[in-house]
Parts: sequence; structure tokens; C-alpha cells
Amino acid sequence: MRARRYVTAAWDIGMTQDAFERWMREALSMVEQRLSLWVPFSAPAGLGEAMRYGVLDGGKRLRPLLVLASCEAVDGDVEAALRAAVSVELIHAYSLVHDDMPCMDNDVLRRGKPTVHVRFGEAGAMLAGDAMQALAFEVLTPEQGLAPELQARLCGLLSRAAGHGGMAGGQAIDLASTGLTLDEAGLRDMHYRKTGVLLRASVLMGAATGACSATAWAALTEFGDAIGLAFQVVDDILDVTQPSEKLGKTAGKDLHANKPTYVTVLGLTEARRQVQVLHGQAQDALMRSGLADAGRLRLLADMVVERDS
Amino acid sequence: MRARRYVTAAWDIGMTQDAFERWMREALSMVEQRLSLWVPFSAPAGLGEAMRYGVLDGGKRLRPLLVLASCEAVDGDVEAALRAAVSVELIHAYSLVHDDMPCMDNDVLRRGKPTVHVRFGEAGAMLAGDAMQALAFEVLTPEQGLAPELQARLCGLLSRAAGHGGMAGGQAIDLASTGLTLDEAGLRDMHYRKTGVLLRASVLMGAATGACSATAWAALTEFGDAIGLAFQVVDDILDVTQPSEKLGKTAGKDLHANKPTYVTVLGLTEARRQVQVLHGQAQDALMRSGLADAGRLRLLADMVVERDS
Repeated sequence: MRARRYVTAAWDIGMTQDAFERWMREALSMVEQRLSLWVPFSAPAGLGEAMRYGVLDGGKRLRPLLVLASCEAVDGDVEAALRAAVSVELIHAYSLVHDDMPCMDNDVLRRGKPTVHVRFGEAGAMLAGDAMQALAFEVLTPEQGLAPELQARLCGLLSRAAGHGGMAGGQAIDLASTGLTLDEAGLRDMHYRKTGVLLRASVLMGAATGACSATAWAALTEFGDAIGLAFQVVDDILDVTQPSEKLGKTAGKDLHANKPTYVTVLGLTEARRQVQVLHGQAQDALMRSGLADAGRLRLLADMVVERDS
Repeated sequence: MRARRYVTAAWDIGMTQDAFERWMREALSMVEQRLSLWVPFSAPAGLGEAMRYGVLDGGKRLRPLLVLASCEAVDGDVEAALRAAVSVELIHAYSLVHDDMPCMDNDVLRRGKPTVHVRFGEAGAMLAGDAMQALAFEVLTPEQGLAPELQARLCGLLSRAAGHGGMAGGQAIDLASTGLTLDEAGLRDMHYRKTGVLLRASVLMGAATGACSATAWAALTEFGDAIGLAFQVVDDILDVTQPSEKLGKTAGKDLHANKPTYVTVLGLTEARRQVQVLHGQAQDALMRSGLADAGRLRLLADMVVERDS
């Protein structure tokens, strides 16, 4: 399954699987630390508690890892990238909090725990999500320590990925698609907006923290698009092939909700083939980026397509 | 009722009521035009329609007017101020959309129309609100035409006013306060966060578009705090003294929801006296700002305390 065709390429020397795993442990530890530092205990009337519940102690942190790997690829500013990483994760986590609510997917299990509205009530969950979105932009605009030009650029990338043209737009299509027959193009558009745009933004926000040529920027955009779509196709596959305990969320729910997925539209075999095609596109894009230190991004792409939960 | 003590002061010459009303009509027209331009028709699956429904054709636009008046007071950049004005109104409007939902205030009438969730469903309303918050930051981060330093500053001011330390935090206190007895300090803190912080941010975002001394900034902060609190106390008064038709929203709802208000805590007479005290504080702060062209802000403060809907 695993496509290893670039593993001996010159640009990849120096990033062994061991070194990657060490880096990943360190990166995850820094991200958790910053999340814990920046998501407030002190917000009033239980709001801080609900926000922390919604974002701490769970999740694979794929988006923060993409930000940090991309930062390394352009030899960027790690402190800036940590702010970007936390802001992207806050947007992702708030979308899960709102998405799980009864008026949306009505889900009671997330990351192996009761969802935020089960624990804090619907109003508490809605407000926690709202405050998490605002906090993402607070984290990107500190009074000092981050150049204003970079603050502006990161806020621009994140807001466009989160909004009507990206994630929120994808959720709206998803909502409207229940019981509909989408063709592959329609499905691709929905998945692209719902998940792909924020994954791409993660890669680009990391790249914005360093010097990145127009060629590398374009290649990283393609890389982000490919793994973004691959991620969602894998999600569709896991939804029907893995049990809830493994996923930490309710399995088979798209199927039961009569929502179009890559599996229902293309079948399992073709969906798996699509993942391999997208994986290849992601690897090609990284090659074309000309970035010497893109090994972490390549290995993250491997993780995205090979994950089983 | 109307406090006119500064009307002949030198700094105020040149802003007659007529000139103010002319300016206000022009300002409102520009704000509506920009809202219509920047809130997308094109967002997918009815999302754009719900966003436009939630923010266009209604509302007094007090926050945008404060941004623009404050911009005039510092001889700021009107194009930048229009972006700030629209972004603040988007945050305000999204908060109303979410606040009206069944899990919060469960209100069916807003600005004389059915609320967004009545018209577009609960999931549609939640997503529209989410996308409106993201759009506020999109509007503040255009690819060109607004200096990055100012983009960053405006994003910082807006996110902090919208988030857990401001509006969302105030909503959380409000939610938790039903049936509780708050003292005046507790009530002030709730009102301050829920409404005051965003009104203050409106004034400061306008001031950020021009040159503003530290003295003027501090004075405008005090001005924003005073009218922010006054606005909410007036709201509490109108909730019990005006019918729904006049307000364009359900009257008496705080009373029926058993929520503490300035009227229930202090009584109507003392609440009215507080409004006058805050009005005086706002006027004093403007005097101390040393800004020559603060007449529009003064007249907006008059409007805030004298409004009957």
C-alpha cells in the first residue's frame, strides 16, 4: 500500500521515521502546552471549562502538525507557527462542537468522550464554539512577539478557510445534501470545502512563517488540496470499515443519515484507489516545491492516508 | 432630559443637529452598501441567503456609526473605517442570530421579522452565525487597500471584544444568571461584557484608523465604556416600558425569563438616573479627549440615551 518512491530522494535524506516520530512527539507536546496556556480557565460562568473540554486532551492534532511541519520546511518562525497551529486547531475544534449539536449531526460521542453539548448543554456548547472561533483570532494577534504583517496574513488565511467559502460553506452543503444524490464533482466540492480548505490553510499558514517562493507556495497549495481531499475520503472509508470504539466517534453515521460519501458514490474499491491517486499527487507536489526540508510533510501525508482511526 | 451643556463649546462648533443628520444618512447608506457588497449572495446551499437575511435591511447600525464617527474624530481613513464598521456589525448580527435560537433565548421576532432560525432552520442559523463571525475577519484582511499593521490591530480589537473576555463571556454570564439574584456589580459586569465591550471596540476601531494620542485613546475608551453600559441600561428600561411593535423584538422577555436587569435590581427611577450619570461620564470623556471633531460621537451618545426603541 505505502508509496515509498521518494524515500531515497536527496531532498528527503535526514528525515528517518525515527527522527520524524521524535519531532512529532515534541511538536504535539508544544501544541498541547500552548493550547492549555491560551484556552482560558478564567472565562466566566463555565465558558472556559466548556472551551477547554472541547479542545484539550483529544484529537490527533493533524492540522497543528501540518502547520509546524510546513514551518520547518521553509525554516520559519516556530513561535509564530505555534500560534498558527493553535488557531487552526481552535477553528477545527469549534466546528466539531457545533457540528455535534442536536440541530446538526446530533452526536453524543467525540474523541471517546460525551460531546460538549451533552456535558454543558446546547447553549453552553454553542457559546463555547463561538468563543473558540474568536479566540483563534485573539491567538493570532498578540500585542507583541508576532510581526503585524504576519498577524494580518495569518488572520486572512484562517478566516477565509473557516468561513462561507471554506469550512462553514462545506457544512452548509453537507447539511443540504442529506438524502440527495451527489455526483463525484459535487461530493468533491463539499469535501474540499468542509475539510480540505482548512488542511490547506494549515500548510500555508506554516509556510507564511518563513520565506517561501511563489513556486513553493503553489506546490504547497496543491499538496494541501491533495491531502485535504484524501483525508476526507479516508474518513468516508473508515466510517464504514471501523467500529465506533476505534474511531472515538459514532461509526456508520453518514450511512445511517443517508448522506452521500465517497464510498456510497464510488464504492469502497474506487474510494481506496482515489486515496492512492491523491497521495501520489501530494508527493509530486512536494517534489516540485523544491523545499529541502519537506520530509515531515511527506510523512504526515503518509499518516493521513494510512490511518485507521 | 437632554443634557446640552457642551453644545456651545468651541470643540463642538460646526456640528449642528442638521449636519449630524445629514452625515448619519450618508454614513448609513455607505454601511448598507458595503454590507450588501461584502456579505455574499454566492455562499453555497442557502448559507449566503441566511447570512444576508441576518444582517441586511434592519438594525439601527449604532456600532458602525460609532466606528465612522470615531474615524471622523481622528481624521482617519474612511475606507478602513467602513471595513471596521461592517466587521463589527457582522459580529453583532451573528450574536443576535445565535442568541435568538431555541437553546438560548428562543425568540421568533427580531427587527420586526421572523428570526433566522425560524426562516432557515436551527442548523442554518447556527452555520450562518458561524460564517458571519469568520466573514468579519475576512472583511478586515483584504489582499490590498488596508495596511497590514492596521489589519492586525483591527483583528486584535475585534476578536477580544467578541470572545470569552467580551461578548461571548457576557452571554455565558447572562445564560447562567436566569433566576439568580445579581447585585449591581454583577449586573454591571454582565452588561459590560455582553454589550459594552463591543461598543467600546467600535469606538476604538474607528480611532485606530487615524492618528490618536494616548490621551485621546484613553478618553475614547472611557467614552465607549460609558455609552456601552448606558445602552444596555436603556435596553433594560425599554424592555419594560415599550411594546413589542415599537421594539421590533419581543418586549418584556427578560422579565418573563426571570433574568436580572437594571430595572429589577435598581428599579425604574434609579435605572433612569444611572443612564443620566453614564451620559454625563461619556460627555466628560469626550471633552477630555481633546479631539476637535468629536461632535458626531457626542450626538450619537445623545441618541443612545434618548432612544425609545
